[in-house]
Amino acid sequence: MIGIGLLGGSVGLAARRAWPDVSVVGFARSQETLASALSAGAATEVTDNLQSAVREADLICVGTPVTLIAGQVIEIASLCHDDALITDVGSTKGVIVRTVEQNGFAAGKFIGSHPIAGGEKTGPQFAKADLFDQRLVVVTPTDSTDPLRLANVEAFWKSLGANVVRTRPEQHDDILAATSHLPHLVAAVLASIIPVEAIPFAGPGWRDTTRIAGGCPEMWAAICKENRPAIKEQLSRMINSLDLLRNAVDSGDASTIKNMLVRARENRQQVDHENS
Amino acid sequence: MIGIGLLGGSVGLAARRAWPDVSVVGFARSQETLASALSAGAATEVTDNLQSAVREADLICVGTPVTLIAGQVIEIASLCHDDALITDVGSTKGVIVRTVEQNGFAAGKFIGSHPIAGGEKTGPQFAKADLFDQRLVVVTPTDSTDPLRLANVEAFWKSLGANVVRTRPEQHDDILAATSHLPHLVAAVLASIIPVEAIPFAGPGWRDTTRIAGGCPEMWAAICKENRPAIKEQLSRMINSLDLLRNAVDSGDASTIKNMLVRARENRQQVDHENS
Repeated sequence: MIGIGLLGGSVGLAARRAWPDVSVVGFARSQETLASALSAGAATEVTDNLQSAVREADLICVGTPVTLIAGQVIEIASLCHDDALITDVGSTKGVIVRTVEQNGFAAGKFIGSHPIAGGEKTGPQFAKADLFDQRLVVVTPTDSTDPLRLANVEAFWKSLGANVVRTRPEQHDDILAATSHLPHLVAAVLASIIPVEAIPFAGPGWRDTTRIAGGCPEMWAAICKENRPAIKEQLSRMINSLDLLRNAVDSGDASTIKNMLVRARENRQQVDHENS
Repeated sequence: MIGIGLLGGSVGLAARRAWPDVSVVGFARSQETLASALSAGAATEVTDNLQSAVREADLICVGTPVTLIAGQVIEIASLCHDDALITDVGSTKGVIVRTVEQNGFAAGKFIGSHPIAGGEKTGPQFAKADLFDQRLVVVTPTDSTDPLRLANVEAFWKSLGANVVRTRPEQHDDILAATSHLPHLVAAVLASIIPVEAIPFAGPGWRDTTRIAGGCPEMWAAICKENRPAIKEQLSRMINSLDLLRNAVDSGDASTIKNMLVRARENRQQVDHENS
């Protein structure tokens, strides 16, 4: 595990659950993170030396901030053995996968992954062995992907409890902009604009709707950078729909308001039906 | 209880918890609702006759849709005894309170209330005796409010487990537009615009952020009508902030993105600190 946060730590715990004798080597720059990963049982060994972390690894999973992943994958590809498989847990895929692809050697060892799991907490102390159970992991092969490694990375995520789906990297980014990046940013904007005098009145509805606004600012700024066009498009769709709603409220157009609310409820019911 | 939904039913259950021998008479038009209220224990008697429901009542609580409340309060004021206290549980207060106030006779018996509690489920079968425990109830007296009834309605809500705060009706509506009405509408817009191909990928973040979008379309259309100017203003603030964020994403302005996310996190922490 290169980078041992909530996701990386959970990969370690889930791998140890699946294969009790497996060695999980955790790499991070911070001694505090390494100690926390060991005490959480997320790794069986830890090191701050990248080369010794990956030298004997069969599977290397990169869980650092999305803007760092491609560069690290390329570096790791030259340090690990020939048969090693490299994947990641980044929330964006297009820029990462296409950057790695420009390096033919690294591209042969790498397949992008994104487990749709996690939460607003960060750090290995919040890692859970069952974080991926019944959750979706998107893998994003390309034309240059090695078929054997693709089968292996899919088998790996299934062994950790996940359901696996394949998409193109760009398709992943378009979809996640709608299902994850937009909700995070909307929740954050909503939380950021509450008037100070209204704070004592914020109830369970406000708190649910803004829960995911508690995430790491640096991580979300990085996601905005990596998935800029798709996030911009989703923000535009949101703004346009809010503008239509504002006009309906202003003109007392109850049927437009009700239609929107009915569509919202139908979509929610479909998500609950398909994804729970 | 005039109207026995989630809130009205919970008022009945909580009153019976506080005073085990109390009579709670439930009024609704639908026989199904009346039967459901009786079987949930939310009322000790039920009737579809408004006059017999309120004739002997000391406290009358109106829990019908917000657009109906003022008219019913005025009607009830002429049917109940001279010392009766009338309140409500409507999510908006300005139009209701000012409409009742134009009728001096009803205004003398009425004080507006809004318990900030509930959820996206509706109906007496979801009512809970502890729904108001530690929750805020806003009461909205005016210059024509009877001081004795004000003391009594506040004591009533406290006996049901709630914390009570007073605001002017218009101040209530401005605040609730920010803490409740805007989050509901934003959650609904977000849920309404998810592309169909993205539905299988919607994870826990999307579901949390859109949870309150499952509410009743008719009820929310009514709230939009009753609190039009304040909701319009909050929608405008949301649109403007999303537009600033879109520009920051587009121009790669990471510091604006991070500042917004930091402010969101601070506001959330303050709400968690003050209101949990």
